[in-house]
Amino acid sequence: MQSTAHPELDRPKPNDDRLPQVVIIGGGFAGMMCAKQLKRAKLGIQLIDRRNFHLFQPLLYQVATGGLSPANIAAPLRSIFRRQKNVRVWMGTVVDFDAAKQLVHLEDGTSLPYDYLVLGTGSTHHYFGRDADWESVAPGLKTIEDATVIRRKVLSAFERAEKSSDSEEIARLLTFVIVGGGPTGVEMAGSIAELSKQTMRYDFRSIDPTKARVILVESSKLVLDRYHEKLAKRAGKDLRELGVEVLNETRLAEILPDHVVVLEQGVSRPIPTETVIWAAGVKASPLGRTLAERCGVPDMVDRGGRVAVQPDCSLAGSPNIFVVGDLANFTTADGKSLPGVAPVAIQQGVYVGKRIAAMIQGRPTGPFRYWDKGNMATIGRSHAIVESGKLRLTGKLAWLAWLFIHILYLARFENRVLVLFQWFWNYVTRNRTARLITGGQVITGGQEARLPEKPASNP
Amino acid sequence: MQSTAHPELDRPKPNDDRLPQVVIIGGGFAGMMCAKQLKRAKLGIQLIDRRNFHLFQPLLYQVATGGLSPANIAAPLRSIFRRQKNVRVWMGTVVDFDAAKQLVHLEDGTSLPYDYLVLGTGSTHHYFGRDADWESVAPGLKTIEDATVIRRKVLSAFERAEKSSDSEEIARLLTFVIVGGGPTGVEMAGSIAELSKQTMRYDFRSIDPTKARVILVESSKLVLDRYHEKLAKRAGKDLRELGVEVLNETRLAEILPDHVVVLEQGVSRPIPTETVIWAAGVKASPLGRTLAERCGVPDMVDRGGRVAVQPDCSLAGSPNIFVVGDLANFTTADGKSLPGVAPVAIQQGVYVGKRIAAMIQGRPTGPFRYWDKGNMATIGRSHAIVESGKLRLTGKLAWLAWLFIHILYLARFENRVLVLFQWFWNYVTRNRTARLITGGQVITGGQEARLPEKPASNP
Repeated sequence: MQSTAHPELDRPKPNDDRLPQVVIIGGGFAGMMCAKQLKRAKLGIQLIDRRNFHLFQPLLYQVATGGLSPANIAAPLRSIFRRQKNVRVWMGTVVDFDAAKQLVHLEDGTSLPYDYLVLGTGSTHHYFGRDADWESVAPGLKTIEDATVIRRKVLSAFERAEKSSDSEEIARLLTFVIVGGGPTGVEMAGSIAELSKQTMRYDFRSIDPTKARVILVESSKLVLDRYHEKLAKRAGKDLRELGVEVLNETRLAEILPDHVVVLEQGVSRPIPTETVIWAAGVKASPLGRTLAERCGVPDMVDRGGRVAVQPDCSLAGSPNIFVVGDLANFTTADGKSLPGVAPVAIQQGVYVGKRIAAMIQGRPTGPFRYWDKGNMATIGRSHAIVESGKLRLTGKLAWLAWLFIHILYLARFENRVLVLFQWFWNYVTRNRTARLITGGQVITGGQEARLPEKPASNP
Repeated sequence: MQSTAHPELDRPKPNDDRLPQVVIIGGGFAGMMCAKQLKRAKLGIQLIDRRNFHLFQPLLYQVATGGLSPANIAAPLRSIFRRQKNVRVWMGTVVDFDAAKQLVHLEDGTSLPYDYLVLGTGSTHHYFGRDADWESVAPGLKTIEDATVIRRKVLSAFERAEKSSDSEEIARLLTFVIVGGGPTGVEMAGSIAELSKQTMRYDFRSIDPTKARVILVESSKLVLDRYHEKLAKRAGKDLRELGVEVLNETRLAEILPDHVVVLEQGVSRPIPTETVIWAAGVKASPLGRTLAERCGVPDMVDRGGRVAVQPDCSLAGSPNIFVVGDLANFTTADGKSLPGVAPVAIQQGVYVGKRIAAMIQGRPTGPFRYWDKGNMATIGRSHAIVESGKLRLTGKLAWLAWLFIHILYLARFENRVLVLFQWFWNYVTRNRTARLITGGQVITGGQEARLPEKPASNP
C-alpha cells in the first residue's frame, strides 16, 4: 500500500509496527496535552509541529512589549517529551492527508501512517477580506516572530520620534492603534501604555514618551464584551486610567502608511499613526478544510475554517480522526459553540487522549464536556478581571488570581520559576529588560531599512 | 558653517550649545564606559549606536547554544543612561566625518557637531580573503543575530538528522566544525559538546545525539595559545574529556556545502559536515579607516583596519579625537600591541572619559596604562582556565572564579540577578531552556527553507 510519491517512513523500531500509531499534528495546548495524556498507553505517538517548541500563547503579549523573552514562554517539545518514550517529535509541515491509506503527507515528501489522527493546528489572523493589504502593515500576535516584529515596531517608533524634529511626525510616531477589544487587544493596549508612561518615562531627551497615545478600537459597546457587563465596564475604566483611549462602537475602515481611518457611528475620522496592531479576528488553519475534504465531509467546515466535530471531538464518519482546540467547532448540548481559548484546547486534548486509550482497550467513553472554570484578562501591571461562574473579581485581587493561575499553568514548563522571577523583577523595578530591537530591521533616519545578512561593524 | 547636504541637527536645549559636545560612536564596552565616566562632566554627550542595546559579548556563545536568552546579555542603552541627563542616545549609523567642520555624518542625512570625538565601533569577522564565499556558510559570533543564526543552525542539524534514514547524511549533520581555537572557539566547542552529550541526551528517538562529533580546528600547536603552556595544555585536555576532537596544527582549506577540507601538516583531508562556525579571525570596523583618512593620517591604519593611536588613545595630529577598544591599535611602552579583549576596551573607555574631562578643565593627564588583571576562558559547564600575573588556575576553581568575575561585570546590567539565576538553573538541571529555532528559517525535509513573513497556520 505504498505510494511512490510519498514513501512511508521507516519507523523507529520494528516492534513498534505492531502498536497502534497515533499521529498528532500541532504541539499547541491541545496536541501537547493529548500526547501527555497517552503517557502510559501502549502505542506509538508521532507529534508533528513546524516549530521545535510549544508556545504559551497567553503570554505572547509580554514578549511583544519587552517584558519577557521568547524563551520564557516557550519550551522545546523534545524537552517536554524527553522521558515519554512512546512520543516521537517531528519538526515538519503537514500538507495533505490520504484518508483511504491512513497517511499524513509532509512537505518534505515523506508520509506517516496513522491508526488514530489528532489535528490541532489552531488559528491565525483574519483581516476580514483585507489580508492582502493589511497583513503586512498591521501585525497580529500568534507566533514568537509576530511578537518580536511588534516589539521592534513599537520600540522603533519611539527611536524614530526621538530623532525627528517634525512635530507632526513625532505625534504620528507616538500614536499606537490596537484593533480589537478582546483579551489580546486589551492586554496589548495596557502593556504599551505602561511601557510608554512608566518603563520608558525617563529614557528620552527630545520626546516625552508619557505623551504617547494608545488607542484601542473596538466595534462593540464595551471592550471584553463576552464578560459580564460590570466587568467589561470596569475593564474599560481601568484602561482609561492607564491612559488608553478606548474607542467603542468604532470600526477600522482603512490602514494607510501614515494614518488609519476609523468609522465612529458612521462618521469617518483619520488618525495619524504608523503603528497598527491587529487583535481583531482569527481564522482557522487551512489543514482543517483539507482534512474534511479528504474524509468526504467538506460541509463540516464553517466559513471561518473551523471543523464541526462530533460529541467525542471526532470528525463525522471517521471515529478515529479527531479535531481539537481552536480548529474545532464544538457545539455543546445546549447549542453553544465553545470559544477558542486555551482551557478548551487543554481539556479537549486530555479528553481525546483518554478517548483513544479507551478505544484501544475497547472501553466506552462519554462525550466531551467542557468544564468552564472561568475567564480572565489583565489590564496592565496590576489590574485584571476574573469571571468564574457567579464569582466576579476586578482590580488587584483579580490580578493576583490571574498571576497565580498562569504560574500554575506554566508548571508544564521547566522554566516556570524563571518566569515568575522575571515577572517579579519587572514588577518591582517597573522595568522591561527584554526591550531589544533585533532581527531584520534597523533604523536609518526616517524609515526602517533592511539589515544586511552580516551587519557591518558599526555595532 | 552649515553644509546644506547635512544640516546640523537641532540640539535638545538652547543652553547646551555652550557646553562642549562629545560624540561617542559605538555603545560597546569602550563607548559605554567612556560615557559613564563623564557622568559629572559639564558637557553634552551624543552616544550613537546602530542598535538600541549594549551587548555583553563575552557571553554571546551562551545564546548561540541555547543557555541564555538574548535579553539576558543585552541592556537597552536608554535604560543604562536613563538617569545620566548629559547623555543623549541616538540609534543610527555613522557613514562619514568632516574633520574641518568637526561633524559626524549619519546615514539618514543628519550631522552631529563634536568638540571631542570617541570612536569605538569594534570589529567584525575576517575570513582571510574568503569573506565572499565563507561568510554566508560559516557564521561568526559578534551580534545577537549571529548567535541566533548559529543556534538555529546547530539545533536544526539535530532535527534534520532525526528525520533522516541515510546514515551518511546523519553522520554529516551530526558533525560540527568550529574554526579557531581562541576563547570563542573553545567556548563554542565546549558548549556544543555539552548540548549534544548532556542537555539533549534523551531528546531524540532515531539518532543518538551523544554520538555527535564536535571538531575544533586550530592552526597552532595548542588551543588558547596566548596562555601559559600549562594552561593551554590543560584546556586541550578538558576539551577532549568533554568529547571535543581537537585538531592542532591544522588549517581550514575549503568550505563546501557538504564538507570542509582541512590541511593537517600539509596533508588534506575532507570532513563531511554541514555546520561550520567561524571563530578564527576578526577585522576592524571600516569607520576607523574613514576617520583616519578624513583626518589626513591614513598611514595610521594597519592591514587589519585597526587604527594606531597615541599614548593618550588619540589619533595622531587630532588631540580631540580618540579611538578605543578593538578598533584601536595601542602599543605599550615595551612595544607590545594590546589584544582586542573586553578589559582593554573598558579601561580605554574610562581613561578617555577622564582625559576629556581633564582637557576641558585644562588639567594634564598621564598616558593610558593597561592594567592586565588576567585572562580567562571557560571549557564547558565546570571547567575554565584563569591566568592573572603568576596565578594560574584550572578546573572547577577556575570556573568559579570565571563565574564570579562575569557576574561582577554584569553588574553594569540591571538583569544580573536574572542571569545568575538562569545560569544556576541550567547548572542544576543541566538544561538549556532557550533552545528555540526562531527567525527566517524552518525545516522542511532535507533542507532549510525560508519562512514566509506570516507563517501559515500549521503551528
